[in-house]
Amino acid sequence: MSLLVVGTIGIDTVETPAAKRANILGGSASYFAYAASYFTRVSLVGVVGNDFPPAFRDLLAKRDIDLSGLEVAKGETFRWTGKYHENMIDRDTLEVRLNVFGEFNPKVPEASCGAEFLFLANGSPSVQRKVLSQMKKRPKFVAADTMNLWIETARGELDELLREIDALVINDSEARMYTDERELLRAGKMLLKKGPRTIVIKKGEHGALVISADGVFSVPAYPLEEVIDPTGAGDTFAGAIMGYLAAEGNAAPATLRRAVAYGAVVASFTCEDFSLDALKKIERKEIDSRYHALLSMVDIPK
Amino acid sequence: MSLLVVGTIGIDTVETPAAKRANILGGSASYFAYAASYFTRVSLVGVVGNDFPPAFRDLLAKRDIDLSGLEVAKGETFRWTGKYHENMIDRDTLEVRLNVFGEFNPKVPEASCGAEFLFLANGSPSVQRKVLSQMKKRPKFVAADTMNLWIETARGELDELLREIDALVINDSEARMYTDERELLRAGKMLLKKGPRTIVIKKGEHGALVISADGVFSVPAYPLEEVIDPTGAGDTFAGAIMGYLAAEGNAAPATLRRAVAYGAVVASFTCEDFSLDALKKIERKEIDSRYHALLSMVDIPK
Repeated sequence: MSLLVVGTIGIDTVETPAAKRANILGGSASYFAYAASYFTRVSLVGVVGNDFPPAFRDLLAKRDIDLSGLEVAKGETFRWTGKYHENMIDRDTLEVRLNVFGEFNPKVPEASCGAEFLFLANGSPSVQRKVLSQMKKRPKFVAADTMNLWIETARGELDELLREIDALVINDSEARMYTDERELLRAGKMLLKKGPRTIVIKKGEHGALVISADGVFSVPAYPLEEVIDPTGAGDTFAGAIMGYLAAEGNAAPATLRRAVAYGAVVASFTCEDFSLDALKKIERKEIDSRYHALLSMVDIPK
Repeated sequence: MSLLVVGTIGIDTVETPAAKRANILGGSASYFAYAASYFTRVSLVGVVGNDFPPAFRDLLAKRDIDLSGLEVAKGETFRWTGKYHENMIDRDTLEVRLNVFGEFNPKVPEASCGAEFLFLANGSPSVQRKVLSQMKKRPKFVAADTMNLWIETARGELDELLREIDALVINDSEARMYTDERELLRAGKMLLKKGPRTIVIKKGEHGALVISADGVFSVPAYPLEEVIDPTGAGDTFAGAIMGYLAAEGNAAPATLRRAVAYGAVVASFTCEDFSLDALKKIERKEIDSRYHALLSMVDIPK
């Protein structure tokens, strides 16, 4: 079934304890769409400036990502510069320039208004809701991401959004902030009460916890010998989940579990290099192979 | 098969963000033995002072723990006072008084010298090795715990110990410190090279990662709505693992996976109250019920 993502496309400069790279492709929608493309065709709605390198566009197009909703505006592309701490988890944002993204007023192309799976990548909840309102009919499954900024500055609007979506994808620290609960199980249950049927709590190198009316599901991160850059891990995690669900055409509990495991696997590849450099080198078969390794890693024989 | 543990028995005063409790039963061997007792009979070797409350001894005896190796020395019992940070993970030791434990020279009773499963709870590696050398024949399975103090001050002796044991149980931060590796997979593989066939890395609220020649196994912590006091979680985790292995009479890969899952479950009960207060209230059937819940929590349907 059809999948649509709305989010940022950016040019990043990233320093990690491993290395530093300037002017690389970043942004939630780029990462999401690239990951989803291993499972299904995905349409992307976003904006870039007229400085956006053709090579970055080609990279996305090569994976058959539908870029008809990618607006090119006069000005510069969104830019982010960040530096990770020694633990590869905490990071400082050294510079953000919203540029053309500051004026972004997403318009879902006619052809995508009937998408059955929709992902609202991190953005202001009012913009996320505006996208949802453009859909001709309520999609089968809508998921959204958010971040501390919106929890702090737009909580009312975020609460509204939560009443309208099926699943919330959120970091552990943000789930704690949003609910003022230390234990993730309790935070997840509180978020469930706000509306979504499913809360996916991302725990970085510790995997993810999924809390829903159907129960609790826990998946570890796929363990790596070396992490080069965790940027985009969360977005590719979500991209693989939504890509798998759209390909299967449902979000039933068992499908969702497999989807989240695929999410963990694709996120692990993302961490092995900067930008999409590690994903660029792999095909679906490498993902499947690591997926089966993950299955055996969590197996508790009867 | 027979199980023996050698470690500390203490009187703790613990403050957590939830509450504070003074003069409660603590110590690695107390926690370990209590957890193991749900699976098999366990013999305990340790020392207490003549101030050790009879009620504490009764608590252990009631679970049929063999206390014939519990020495009562003239003086005071080992005492620890600690305070947990808001995150319920980091803690400050406010006071330690070794008391009679400072002179502890463990003597394995004749009847336990043939134990087939042996756990060397956290202690100086030279004392741990001395215990092992008292065994009449090499036990079928020997596991040991350690801590940052020994990694920093007795690394040579610790390396020697590792050549003599089957499994090392170690915290994530200590595994990183010991190997100078950030990624736990790599830390685990480096520790494997030091001798043990199995490395069990404890990750607190994130569960555990088991690295061995047979592959990698990941188990989450059993998620709780409320944590009251995590003290002893790691010791009861190890106690349940060793108790289960001893009851099954082997440490084959599948047995070990089930054992580690039981470890996660028993550790979760420990966190729900101070000292052994939560474990005191449950029987094996509550453990089994949570074990089956954990199995379904990690299940990824084919």
